[in-house]
Amino acid sequence: MSKKIAVIGGDMRQIYLVRSLKKYGYSVKCFGFDKTDVECEKTLCDTVFGCETVILPLPATTDGIYINMPLSDEKVTVEEIVRLSSDCGSVLGGRLDGIKGLFKAKTVDYIDREEVAVKNAIPTAEGAIQIAMNELPITVFGMNCLVTGFGRVSRALCSRLKALGAKVTVAARKISDLAWIEEGGFVPLPFSRLSLSLSEFDCIFNTVPQKVFNRPELLNISPDAIIVDLASKPGGVDLDEALLQNKKVIWALSLPGKVAAKTSGEIIAKTVIHILEEEL
Amino acid sequence: MSKKIAVIGGDMRQIYLVRSLKKYGYSVKCFGFDKTDVECEKTLCDTVFGCETVILPLPATTDGIYINMPLSDEKVTVEEIVRLSSDCGSVLGGRLDGIKGLFKAKTVDYIDREEVAVKNAIPTAEGAIQIAMNELPITVFGMNCLVTGFGRVSRALCSRLKALGAKVTVAARKISDLAWIEEGGFVPLPFSRLSLSLSEFDCIFNTVPQKVFNRPELLNISPDAIIVDLASKPGGVDLDEALLQNKKVIWALSLPGKVAAKTSGEIIAKTVIHILEEEL
Amino acid sequence: MSKKIAVIGGDMRQIYLVRSLKKYGYSVKCFGFDKTDVECEKTLCDTVFGCETVILPLPATTDGIYINMPLSDEKVTVEEIVRLSSDCGSVLGGRLDGIKGLFKAKTVDYIDREEVAVKNAIPTAEGAIQIAMNELPITVFGMNCLVTGFGRVSRALCSRLKALGAKVTVAARKISDLAWIEEGGFVPLPFSRLSLSLSEFDCIFNTVPQKVFNRPELLNISPDAIIVDLASKPGGVDLDEALLQNKKVIWALSLPGKVAAKTSGEIIAKTVIHILEEEL
Amino acid sequence: MSKKIAVIGGDMRQIYLVRSLKKYGYSVKCFGFDKTDVECEKTLCDTVFGCETVILPLPATTDGIYINMPLSDEKVTVEEIVRLSSDCGSVLGGRLDGIKGLFKAKTVDYIDREEVAVKNAIPTAEGAIQIAMNELPITVFGMNCLVTGFGRVSRALCSRLKALGAKVTVAARKISDLAWIEEGGFVPLPFSRLSLSLSEFDCIFNTVPQKVFNRPELLNISPDAIIVDLASKPGGVDLDEALLQNKKVIWALSLPGKVAAKTSGEIIAKTVIHILEEEL
Repeated sequence: MSKKIAVIGGDMRQIYLVRSLKKYGYSVKCFGFDKTDVECEKTLCDTVFGCETVILPLPATTDGIYINMPLSDEKVTVEEIVRLSSDCGSVLGGRLDGIKGLFKAKTVDYIDREEVAVKNAIPTAEGAIQIAMNELPITVFGMNCLVTGFGRVSRALCSRLKALGAKVTVAARKISDLAWIEEGGFVPLPFSRLSLSLSEFDCIFNTVPQKVFNRPELLNISPDAIIVDLASKPGGVDLDEALLQNKKVIWALSLPGKVAAKTSGEIIAKTVIHILEEEL
Repeated sequence: MSKKIAVIGGDMRQIYLVRSLKKYGYSVKCFGFDKTDVECEKTLCDTVFGCETVILPLPATTDGIYINMPLSDEKVTVEEIVRLSSDCGSVLGGRLDGIKGLFKAKTVDYIDREEVAVKNAIPTAEGAIQIAMNELPITVFGMNCLVTGFGRVSRALCSRLKALGAKVTVAARKISDLAWIEEGGFVPLPFSRLSLSLSEFDCIFNTVPQKVFNRPELLNISPDAIIVDLASKPGGVDLDEALLQNKKVIWALSLPGKVAAKTSGEIIAKTVIHILEEEL
Repeated sequence: MSKKIAVIGGDMRQIYLVRSLKKYGYSVKCFGFDKTDVECEKTLCDTVFGCETVILPLPATTDGIYINMPLSDEKVTVEEIVRLSSDCGSVLGGRLDGIKGLFKAKTVDYIDREEVAVKNAIPTAEGAIQIAMNELPITVFGMNCLVTGFGRVSRALCSRLKALGAKVTVAARKISDLAWIEEGGFVPLPFSRLSLSLSEFDCIFNTVPQKVFNRPELLNISPDAIIVDLASKPGGVDLDEALLQNKKVIWALSLPGKVAAKTSGEIIAKTVIHILEEEL
Repeated sequence: MSKKIAVIGGDMRQIYLVRSLKKYGYSVKCFGFDKTDVECEKTLCDTVFGCETVILPLPATTDGIYINMPLSDEKVTVEEIVRLSSDCGSVLGGRLDGIKGLFKAKTVDYIDREEVAVKNAIPTAEGAIQIAMNELPITVFGMNCLVTGFGRVSRALCSRLKALGAKVTVAARKISDLAWIEEGGFVPLPFSRLSLSLSEFDCIFNTVPQKVFNRPELLNISPDAIIVDLASKPGGVDLDEALLQNKKVIWALSLPGKVAAKTSGEIIAKTVIHILEEEL
């Protein structure tokens, strides 16, 4: 428990991560939060020196060159971290794909852990509901909702919408998924019949990372409805066509960090602690 | 069903009310929506002429002199309406208390109907949750919430918070209410022991229209917490003291019209139709 | 807390009541449980002697003459209790109406307390669902249910049926009740239109203590359906007519004691303790 | 839709299956229900002759020799069915493992379909709750429940127990399952710490088909508690040891057919129709 940890860069989530780690008894040094009141070391070198573990943000880098540090006026390159961390036991970060190979230290991508994906489904679902509440002049109670796909986010979202009194239809392909959808108290809709019933929905949540909503589907959607697209790139909606048709689309990426930075930071903290305790 | 109705003034809710009334087959003439694309009559006189019923907004007036017409550049006095409506069968409006006595026509206050109060509890509860989601960096899931009072709004709010995964404590006075609170799956808290446990809550929703949160109570509330005050005037929080203590209070009045204008307009429309069919 | 209490007669609920009272530190003497392994005093006189409070069962008597003692081979008359309790501070019992006037000691009917009625709604609702599960060859999930009335038991029942995935319609008279029914996510049915839609239901729960189901209503009910009558005497169903029509009716009285004796005993215990602490 | 189908043997579920198939427009001939009022053919030969599909019960046979026909006084051997069905297009049945190879016709085991397994989770969960309600003198509301495992049946069971107001703890091994358990609002319990907390539970539902409850675990269970074992053979409880310790165990096998024969028959019917329409 006396492990020393360096936390370098990231958004508000990392600040809550730091708080959590300290609460659990870890000794933490920080860098890259100079725009906030978090106490930071003077130099990157001081921060990493003597630490067994370095924690990078989520995502660790957006361009492959610099560490993602929106709360700092300084710049840190991936290369510097690679060099300074060479004596550390491990480097943890989110979306390390492109840079993993550079490190001498053991690397762990905490976003790959299924527990993180499961737990992130909750803030994502809440964020989606928050968007629907903010954008539509009707209550979720009585709202006619369509959710496409039935993965983690969809499940967390559907159960919440239903609990708030929405009528929830879920479009899926697999017969077993359609059975689960029925079990959950939702209306199952085979994907093949999707376009037929689009006009009746007030709010459409897409969770499928494929272009599900193209010209013909968009034409069937009510002009009062909105589409909340939760799918990661390339997203599920033909945005140019939606613009032409004057259909409202909100492409909501990375909701956990935006709508619930503290909860998200704590989710990462718990996983980091699991990794530190179990794997390293 | 061929009844002619004049709708005079009000906010977005009245526009949705007009739509609803038309959908149900009523013939509707409008005045006071010139800032929108709703088709209006040229003069107030044209609007009221030949109508059996005049519908005023909610509230009908804010100052006792002019009709509440935020979507218009024109001004209409209560006096004019009183005069022009003298041949109409009835005048319906919201919060008519101060002006009821002036009318020759039969007046009905649609906000006095219990069905409106019950149904408005839903958009109010959703609006309260929306505020909590927007203001706090944590998810409702796992949030430690306190709701004071156990009336209509509180019930609608508590069940929704719990459905989203919050831990919900409800403070009430009556033993029978405390029994209902337990039945609902919430933690019952006798009002007398309120101040003892205030520090543990992330979010406090007040529904009691009395000053519940004064200096000592506010001192006990966590600096990270927020208070969402849903009570009508004078509200439940000593706002000056809260400011002094740097505690965050959101006094959320008239949520239904703000967060769900369409649903609210339809609620009023249904009640208006009930009144027209049953009572008049 | 060192109060001495005599518990005389009753069913399993009183045995659990005794356990609860002892757990809360009361000194308890028992009589009338000789068919069980509960330790009893030798005589009624020994039991009552020196006790400040006497607790009678629920109901205290079924015939006005003898105390209700199904777990004993002995007999105790109301008169004996009246005589022996004359030096006690108070006599608590359930449904004391007919005999209250006889006592010299202060009497309290614990079944009159609203908290008991509220809390008993839960075992009643669960018992009703248990009956539906036991009697019907279909799951509650997907079951088409009608509940008549919207009082305490109905509310507890409706929310549970819905949570298990039933489609729940509730028949009520008051417009405000119909608004609450809609708020709860149930289908509101004005009582006046009851008979029109009876044929579609798999299971009908009656909570109205009036003859709601007479010949014409019964004729409309599906031959595969059952009626679970939860109303106290005279009940809500014309049983002779139901027999003639071969319709299945289960008149389920006093469910809490039957389906959840321990929970019921603890509910009574808590109320008894409230009464002892607050009122006496 | 004019397909001819022969239904041979089985319990009440097959009778409801027959009804369902007829409702969907199939022409159905029956054999093996002579103890009921279902109309049957005179001979097995008449039944199968001219049918494109033969439907066997669930399970098709219990001994490998005779078809499972509890509602008939007659006997039919697997061999006869094999011979008579040789000209049929397909033979559908439940648990055909041991006899599949004998048939000349195409065979499909309808119990292998995931949709059946998912949908059967609901009657199984309801049956488990029904048992708990029947056996325990306490309400599900407030009951302290443990569910071991987090597969299909466990999920359907946990959400229902929670909806009824139970406190639900779920024991699982995988970290991702423990994350899902938390997401569902249940208390996650790593399997490794199972035995430590066993004493606090009123009701334990086992869904793990391994001997989870042996001597040491059973010793930790409260004498008032019950174990409802939902695991298929060999079950999860050491029954001899439980008997020695006087712990109450209900081993509940094949709940869907027992507690909800009609729903189960309809689940099979829907799958049979899917198979007939899609695969054959």
